[in-house]
Amino acid sequence: MRGRIITLTTDFGLEDIYVGVMKGVILGINPQATIVDLCHNVPPQDIRQAAFLLNTAWRYFPPDSIHVAVVDPGVGGRRRAIALVIGQTVFLGPDNGIFSYVLQGALTDASTTERGINAFHLTNPRYWLPKPSATFHGRDIFAPVAAHLSLGVPVADLGTPLPLNSLVTFPLPVPFYREPVLVGHILHVDRFGNLVTNVPAGHEALQETGIVVEIAGQQIAGLKRTYADGSPGELIALVGSTGYLEVAVVGGNAAQRLGVGPGEEVTIRPCTIHRKML
Amino acid sequence: MRGRIITLTTDFGLEDIYVGVMKGVILGINPQATIVDLCHNVPPQDIRQAAFLLNTAWRYFPPDSIHVAVVDPGVGGRRRAIALVIGQTVFLGPDNGIFSYVLQGALTDASTTERGINAFHLTNPRYWLPKPSATFHGRDIFAPVAAHLSLGVPVADLGTPLPLNSLVTFPLPVPFYREPVLVGHILHVDRFGNLVTNVPAGHEALQETGIVVEIAGQQIAGLKRTYADGSPGELIALVGSTGYLEVAVVGGNAAQRLGVGPGEEVTIRPCTIHRKML
Amino acid sequence: MRGRIITLTTDFGLEDIYVGVMKGVILGINPQATIVDLCHNVPPQDIRQAAFLLNTAWRYFPPDSIHVAVVDPGVGGRRRAIALVIGQTVFLGPDNGIFSYVLQGALTDASTTERGINAFHLTNPRYWLPKPSATFHGRDIFAPVAAHLSLGVPVADLGTPLPLNSLVTFPLPVPFYREPVLVGHILHVDRFGNLVTNVPAGHEALQETGIVVEIAGQQIAGLKRTYADGSPGELIALVGSTGYLEVAVVGGNAAQRLGVGPGEEVTIRPCTIHRKML
Repeated sequence: MRGRIITLTTDFGLEDIYVGVMKGVILGINPQATIVDLCHNVPPQDIRQAAFLLNTAWRYFPPDSIHVAVVDPGVGGRRRAIALVIGQTVFLGPDNGIFSYVLQGALTDASTTERGINAFHLTNPRYWLPKPSATFHGRDIFAPVAAHLSLGVPVADLGTPLPLNSLVTFPLPVPFYREPVLVGHILHVDRFGNLVTNVPAGHEALQETGIVVEIAGQQIAGLKRTYADGSPGELIALVGSTGYLEVAVVGGNAAQRLGVGPGEEVTIRPCTIHRKML
Repeated sequence: MRGRIITLTTDFGLEDIYVGVMKGVILGINPQATIVDLCHNVPPQDIRQAAFLLNTAWRYFPPDSIHVAVVDPGVGGRRRAIALVIGQTVFLGPDNGIFSYVLQGALTDASTTERGINAFHLTNPRYWLPKPSATFHGRDIFAPVAAHLSLGVPVADLGTPLPLNSLVTFPLPVPFYREPVLVGHILHVDRFGNLVTNVPAGHEALQETGIVVEIAGQQIAGLKRTYADGSPGELIALVGSTGYLEVAVVGGNAAQRLGVGPGEEVTIRPCTIHRKML
Repeated sequence: MRGRIITLTTDFGLEDIYVGVMKGVILGINPQATIVDLCHNVPPQDIRQAAFLLNTAWRYFPPDSIHVAVVDPGVGGRRRAIALVIGQTVFLGPDNGIFSYVLQGALTDASTTERGINAFHLTNPRYWLPKPSATFHGRDIFAPVAAHLSLGVPVADLGTPLPLNSLVTFPLPVPFYREPVLVGHILHVDRFGNLVTNVPAGHEALQETGIVVEIAGQQIAGLKRTYADGSPGELIALVGSTGYLEVAVVGGNAAQRLGVGPGEEVTIRPCTIHRKML
């Protein structure tokens, strides 16, 4: 069990020692723990971005990994601290919707459902730091719980079972039809300014030939295969590495060019001819 | 000894390879070293911020950890390279005040004093890289010394003993009374814009009921227990995770709201009634 | 082989999970891998900065290290994925010039040449993730290849040999004489605003006494030994930790002061008297 990976996703930033302190707590309990930073620059208190990022990352880790996610504006209040277990994978964090994507993905994935999905309320202080603060559960509860888990403590020892339908989730933005177009939304802007949407690569609307993607008044004909397919500066659409439709600028920054961010609408039209016929 | 943790605190930032190179040097000497980044975004040459951050973090690491702190505007000049030993814990860095908080804390803590506090001037080139540069002692002296220590080299082999009172320290800002108010100062602003003061949670002035915290002309009645205790956007005061009085905005950024930063004065009045009686 | 270090240099930034995902892939293949971040804040798509940074860092790592460099604007297109082998050290990345400095340095270094320099086209999908995307070869090709290498897979198994002269390189900016001055250029600006040039410490022009360094209309007399040699705010020249001429401001930021960045010209005059005689 020593080799279990513990990943950390937070909005603590890298200007402080909060992340380092969590690692000190983990290594004090399990000196052999392998800790991986997923992202600490989640915008402050932006639970939705954290939920999105975690969901695009966790399947690339070994199945017995422990994923700690702490974007926790309600720390110390009535929100619960939870463990969400999907197969062998354990997610630790506040019950504030941060696992919304992960949970919905697992519930709609037959292979996961077979392996079992369970949740626990972290109520056993035996696995916390003594005298936990009201303001930093990442350090005082989630880090030590992750470390104990990585040493082989059974997840059921951490607290009491919770019904899945009691977990806080937020409604996930799914693409919908406003005939004849499919309407999606930007969920995330990456460092390159690429606009990641909520339209999955496998969606029927992306399989048609001659589609036109429209965003911020700009029309993009068809999908490219990769970021360099197009002229420098060209606005393109493609399926990105997370498996969703993206809008990008070849060698440039689409978010800056279009002046858009998360929440922006993007539409997919079957093809321009259809459009003119309406 | 292989498992000893080496932490790194610097102002090198993450836009360069300076930190990575220090890790290469450490791992070249001790491939089993466990290296933890505490913070590399200390404002350039801001020894006081580094001193503050290090002090809030080090007690969360195992007692035999090695803490390397390199904010070193005087590198290559007359300032000494030192090891400060507190019990089993070793601090490595320039003798420029970067260990002021740590040292003062240790000197006033009976448990630490019993375990012993010692300092050494790093003068033994046997544990440095060959031909150390005049400009990057983090790479050429502190990283290799930390690695050798983690392999079991006795700290006394690193150089010559130094009297503690010869170490460079800066006067620590302590809260003081300007009757009837207690006057504190902001020491640190974290990523959330929370304003961390130098008033410890245990200070008598914070134990009274009905206190009023004043900063930048704003009055805050009483202490909250956590960041979410209050209405969204409300300016609140509370004891933060470092054990000091903090000023925060619920779901917002107090530093931006008030336009203040490190050095700003904060006062604590016993209670408003007292104030009016004066 | 378990202890082989894998370093990562990318332009992925730290606002996303791209780097974390690469680590998940590596650790899924070799749970004992030691991964070191060199730099992830290379400006987006700036192959030259990545090439420079990698070159200043790699010699500080153990000789059997594996250096993965992914600044890859042409990902998924016709550019090749390659391994460059210098002695025991392996570099993995796109064939887009990112190894230009490393390769030229090795070709002009007798000790390296003796140990052998080889290149391979990564064509063996056995060591990739299944179904690699067209947009994220860092995750799908370079990370898994590095992990397999760290487990002992021979580099020749990764693909087919490439002649060195087939590798993409860009011309390296070398200092040249415009009599009587030596003309160099700024290659890199570090976090402190220090301006790192392409003039090596050993260049004959720097050995003369009474030299004058000129940049952005400012003249600097002679070289200092370290950053603190001079008055606060003074513009100075010195040999920096990378072994190249640098221009700095004592306790300040030379890039901001002079308003210059990479590409800016810097000249070295033998001495002021020579200049007046012209």
